[in-house]
Order: sequence, then C-alpha cells, then structure tokens
Amino acid sequence: MPAPAIEMSRFLDTLAASSAIGPGREGGLSRLALSKADKEVRDMFAGLVKAQGMSLSIDGVGSMFARREGLRPDLPPVLIGSHLDTQANGGRFDGIIGVLGGLEVVRALDAAGITPLRAIEVVNWTNEEGARFSPPMVASGTFAGTYTTEWTLARRSDDGPTLGEALDSIGYRGNAPVGGRPIDAYFELHIEQGPILDSLGMQVGVVTHGYTSHGFLVSFTGETAHTGPWPMERRKNALVAGARLLVASDDIGWDFAETGGKGTAARLVAWPNKPGILSDWAEVVCDVRHDSPASAAVMAERVRRAIGESAARAGCEAKILDSWTWGGHIFDRGLVDGVRASAVRHGFRHMDIASQAGHDAYFMARVAPTAMIFTPCRGGITHNNRELCLPEDMAPGLDVLLDVVLQRANRPA
Amino acid sequence: MPAPAIEMSRFLDTLAASSAIGPGREGGLSRLALSKADKEVRDMFAGLVKAQGMSLSIDGVGSMFARREGLRPDLPPVLIGSHLDTQANGGRFDGIIGVLGGLEVVRALDAAGITPLRAIEVVNWTNEEGARFSPPMVASGTFAGTYTTEWTLARRSDDGPTLGEALDSIGYRGNAPVGGRPIDAYFELHIEQGPILDSLGMQVGVVTHGYTSHGFLVSFTGETAHTGPWPMERRKNALVAGARLLVASDDIGWDFAETGGKGTAARLVAWPNKPGILSDWAEVVCDVRHDSPASAAVMAERVRRAIGESAARAGCEAKILDSWTWGGHIFDRGLVDGVRASAVRHGFRHMDIASQAGHDAYFMARVAPTAMIFTPCRGGITHNNRELCLPEDMAPGLDVLLDVVLQRANRPA
Repeated sequence: MPAPAIEMSRFLDTLAASSAIGPGREGGLSRLALSKADKEVRDMFAGLVKAQGMSLSIDGVGSMFARREGLRPDLPPVLIGSHLDTQANGGRFDGIIGVLGGLEVVRALDAAGITPLRAIEVVNWTNEEGARFSPPMVASGTFAGTYTTEWTLARRSDDGPTLGEALDSIGYRGNAPVGGRPIDAYFELHIEQGPILDSLGMQVGVVTHGYTSHGFLVSFTGETAHTGPWPMERRKNALVAGARLLVASDDIGWDFAETGGKGTAARLVAWPNKPGILSDWAEVVCDVRHDSPASAAVMAERVRRAIGESAARAGCEAKILDSWTWGGHIFDRGLVDGVRASAVRHGFRHMDIASQAGHDAYFMARVAPTAMIFTPCRGGITHNNRELCLPEDMAPGLDVLLDVVLQRANRPA
Repeated sequence: MPAPAIEMSRFLDTLAASSAIGPGREGGLSRLALSKADKEVRDMFAGLVKAQGMSLSIDGVGSMFARREGLRPDLPPVLIGSHLDTQANGGRFDGIIGVLGGLEVVRALDAAGITPLRAIEVVNWTNEEGARFSPPMVASGTFAGTYTTEWTLARRSDDGPTLGEALDSIGYRGNAPVGGRPIDAYFELHIEQGPILDSLGMQVGVVTHGYTSHGFLVSFTGETAHTGPWPMERRKNALVAGARLLVASDDIGWDFAETGGKGTAARLVAWPNKPGILSDWAEVVCDVRHDSPASAAVMAERVRRAIGESAARAGCEAKILDSWTWGGHIFDRGLVDGVRASAVRHGFRHMDIASQAGHDAYFMARVAPTAMIFTPCRGGITHNNRELCLPEDMAPGLDVLLDVVLQRANRPA
C-alpha cells in the first residue's frame, strides 16, 4: 500500500474550478454567502465529494458535511473544514483552500487505499465571512451552540432576505441537526491573511492561539433636522456619533500598534444619510484585537467609553446591540504540537504564530480539540482581489494537514 | 371690483390635499423627487392649475410652470415658486406652501377679477431637496444656467435611475426649454426652517440675504484588506478617512457656533462597508455655513485642510468631486424693501432675517430680481415629520406675497 500523498496538480485543478465561480475584480472573487455564485460552488463541491464516494449532509443552517466513513463508524469523526464564501472583494484562497484541502486529504487516502479508524468529514461552513449576513462565522457558532438555529436563520442581509430565506432560495437549508454531536477533532488549513510568514520566508504557521478580539455592533439614535438653520447645540446627528466612534476605534488601534494591536472601523450605515438633512439613526461595527488579552481588554474598555462619548458629543443615544469576543489560548496543545512535529518531520521552515483573524476554528474549539495550520500568502494581502498563494505556498500546509488528520483518525479508540 | 384677498380656507384645503400624498412618519411626508408620490402631487397640481384656467408647461428637467396670462403677454412674467418634493423624513409645509401659495395668489386675483399687466407664473421646481438626486436645487440651477440640462438629467439616485430616467418613468420630462427666457421677478414664500421667528413671536421674516454656504462632495480611495491581521501602519481604510472628515466638519461647526456658524456631516457611503474588511472607497457630503462670508471662507478652508488630513491619517487619497457655494447678498434690494413695506402696511410683526438653508431663490437671483418671504414654523423644526405651521403662521406671509406679486406685476412697463 503506497503512503498517502497530496497531489498538487489535482488540488490545483479543483482550486482553479472554484476560482472561476463568482468572479470579482480582476483575479479575485465576489462570492457572497448564499448568492447564486455560492450555490454554484456548493453544487460543485457536492458533485466532487459524491464522485469521491462520500456521503453529504446539509445541516439546518446550510453547512455542508461530506463524510468518508471510517473502520469504526461508531467513533466521532475527524472534521476538516473552512468556507467557500468570500468577501465582496475577496480572493481565491481565503477559506477555500481549507475546504478543498480537506477534499484533497480524502482523495489522497482514497488513492492510497487507506481507511483510518475514524470517519473523516469535510465541512463547508455557511457565511464565514459575514460579508452578507452579520456576524461572521455564524454557522460554526451555531454548530458549537453559541447561537441558536432560529437566531442564525433570522440574520438579515443588506440586500433583503434573511439567512434562512436565502438558504431556501438556493435550496441549501438542510435537515441535519446543527451540531449536538461529538467531533473527535477539528483541523482548519487557512492562509495567514497577514504578512508575517511571507516576510520571514516561512512555509508553515503553527497556530498556537488567537488574538483576543472584542467586537461591537452599536446603534445611535438622534433626530432629523435641517443641515442649515438648526443650531449646533440642538443637533442630534447620529451620523456624527457614528463617525466619532469609528475615529475612536482607529485611534485606539494606533495607540496599541507598537505591540501589534489593531482597532478597526468596519462599517457605518445611517438614515436618511442624505445631503440637507441630519440623520436620526446610525449603526456601527468596530472591533479591537491584541495578542495580549489584558491589552485587548483595555482597548475594549476604551471602545465602550468612546461609544458613550461619541453619543454625548452628538446629542444622541447609544445602544450596544451586540458584542462578541473571541481568541485566546483555545487550541488543543496536543494537536498544535502534532502540527509542529509534522512540519519538523517534513523539514518545512515553520514558526509558531497567532491568528489575528477570526475563524470557524474558534467556535469549533469550544466543542472539540482544534488546531489550525497557516500557509503564507504573498505580501499578506487578503480580502482583496490581489490575494495570492503560489502552489509552493500551499503544498507544505497540505502535507501537514494530511499528516495530522491521518494520525488523529487512526488514534487508538 | 373687490380688493384681491387670500382665502385661508381655500389655501388650507389645497394644502390638506397635498398632505395626504406620500405619507411618511406620523404627520409627515416622504415624497422623494420623481417618486410615485411626487407624480401624484404633480398630477394634483396640474389639475388644479388647469381648473384655474392656467396654461401648464413642463421644461426639460421636469419643472412645472403654470401661467396666468397678463394684459401684456409680451412682458416677462412674475414668477412665484418653490417645490413639492420633500425629504425622506419631511414635513407638510417646507416648499409646499411656496407653490400652493403661488396658486392661492392666482386664485385671489381670479376671484377679484383682476388681470395685472404681466403674466404670473407659478413654478414647482424638480428635486429641490436633493434627497433623491444630488445636488439639491438642481432644476432651478439648470434654469439659471449654472448646470446644463444634460448634466442634470444624468444625476443618479441611490435607488438606481438617473434623474432623466425617473422623469421618463413618471411622464414628467417636458419639452419646454430650460431657462433662457426673461423673468421679471421671482418670489418665494417659505417656512423659516429655524427657530428665530417663532421664538421671537414674529409673523413675517423679511429675507435680506442668505448665509454663505460652502459644500463639498469628497471621495476617498484606499485598499481593501482584512480587519484583523493587517498592520495599522499599512491600512488604507477609506471609511476612516470619511469618518475623520465628518468629525472635522462637526468640530468646525462647533468652533463657529457662537456666531451662528454651522458645520454639517451630512452623508457617508463606503464600499464594501462590511465587517471583516477594510473599505477601499468612501464618499462624503459635508458643508459649512456662516452669516459672515469671511467666516464662511475660513470654515471652508478648514474643511479643505481636513480633507487632506483625513486622507493622510487613513493612508488614502482624497478627491473633491464637487463643491458649491451659495448665499450672500443676492436678493434684490427693491423687492426686499417691498416685502418689508407690505408687512408694515399690514401691521405684521416682522424682522429682517437671513436664510440659512439653500433655496431655489438662490439660483433664480442669478437671472432675475428675487426676494423671499419667511413664515415662522413651530420650534423651528423641519426636515422632520413634526414640522408644523398653524394657519396663523402662514396667513401673514401669504398676504405679503399677494401684495408684492400684484405690485410687481402691475409695475408700469
């Protein structure tokens, strides 16, 4: 029996097929969750896994689980996954190589005629990006029990439908229960989405933990009035309150930049948001991130104060509609060590690294031992049509993924 | 022959009919330019003026001119007007009483059997508010030759169609030339849209001049990237640049608030404007206004510097796509004196006042002797569904309007 091996040409062909679906700006993808393009890539994925002899189940929030049975179907499966949706100006690799990489692992096992003890499942999580329905990672969050299925289905897009309605419209609301079943381990291969590995010439990032992130969805309410005669001291312009919070978030990021902190002004919508009239409603999404949980907590407290100050400066009322926290030392030490050991065994240039972005792995870590593997991406550019990973950037990570999955799946019961 | 007189019950009945078209929030209107509701009120106005025996012509940008012929059809007409469109959260009086007040003047003359020397025309200007198509006052600006018809027809709404397409869709693109004909004088009756007359118990505002306003439409371009790992010092988040300009506009307003200056953050749109991704494009509308042209110039220069600083702070490029200036001592001294004299003659409590809002009268002043008459509005509330003028707030202004129009129309040729 040959040793199982990643076959890059096979992987790259599949990646190329994905790259043709939902074209965005030159070289990029604009494959928003549950759009026509997302349906198309889902159909493609479904076809590929069935051709591979895998069974496919769709859960109640549209996540797709392709299962390759193990010798002991009674044991919990090893899960590999990420997402096939992209940002509006997204790349061809972010998330995608994690799903198609999982498929490639299965193909490698098939080609080698190997059936491990445990089943292997490859999952495409719905709406990881949050680019159409907010918040991001909502499907893995539901799988992990952080969100209820009903709440998730009710998330509404800017373009009209709820997540549930959009699922129905593309025929991807499945009947498999959302979560609530044991998972032996979860692995996610992902591009770094930052410049560290590339700039240091590293081939594999051993993800030890996640930056601590605190995010906020805040609404401001004021009063419409004329932009001309209405005295400054009587204005309640919600757009000003929102803008002040965005600026504060950016300022906080700069204040912590020296130690790698980030503060992000991500989104502002207002109504009526037109010339001639002051807006009486605005909604802001902002977040802060830091490798140090203590620093992140300070940053988050500064955001909370900025919310109140921004509202007060504009004569408005503020309300925190939602807030979220993720990151920290959530990954399984044994699995992380296994990733590092595999990189060593292969002789790959590797380093321990923190994830600064959010990933479905963060939620999965709440219900299963979890690890992530980072590949470099050129210049760290991502969420951009110029996102680029060459074959040599992805191959080492895929080799490590195959290693750790096989090892875990064959672990004595 | 009886003296012509405003008949308030007739005027109020017509105003009530208008108030039923395009209902918005409670008590208010949401009658955006060239919407279905705007078509409905236009149709109503067309029916009323025809019933009054007036001829109606529609110009190439949809402005409606209802003409009551004079004894000397060869003389340029006296024009009365304002607008029937409203803001998204608009009131029942702003603009509307200027058009329906013009109609009431004609009805009063008809009832008295009086035909002045000059024709009287009542105009409903298209898209005064700028709430659907930017900039505001675009039709009077085109009539006055500041904008070309082609440019105006190409203005695009947030909801899709251009102004020209929207005109076609409601059947209001007329074939009368836009402007280019002599106007003897232009009068506009309007609510103050500020608290001054009401707080001082004044019945009539004699509008001597307009606040000097400087407005800016600015775009910022940056680069999309991930909100997490991308270092602060490499970010080019156009949303941050836009937010900084909005905050600066508000700050400038506060710095000049003591002398009645205003700085307004009016509008911010960005792309993709979603959680998880930095925006690479933002567009801002902001303006500054001051009674003193010199102060307004200083404020405008501060905005210009803030545009550059906001872009620089966010690593973005700024571009001023459009800028505009209006106001100043543009009204005709003789006509303004006539308004004041009429108020004195009637014994109305009146005061000289500056207009702080923009009005179609500003553009008309570029091509014809022009004057404005202000009525009080309760609490100065406007661009808000709680905008309110009681009959006793409007009656004095209507009496003055009838006076000055009749006097001007009968002026010896």
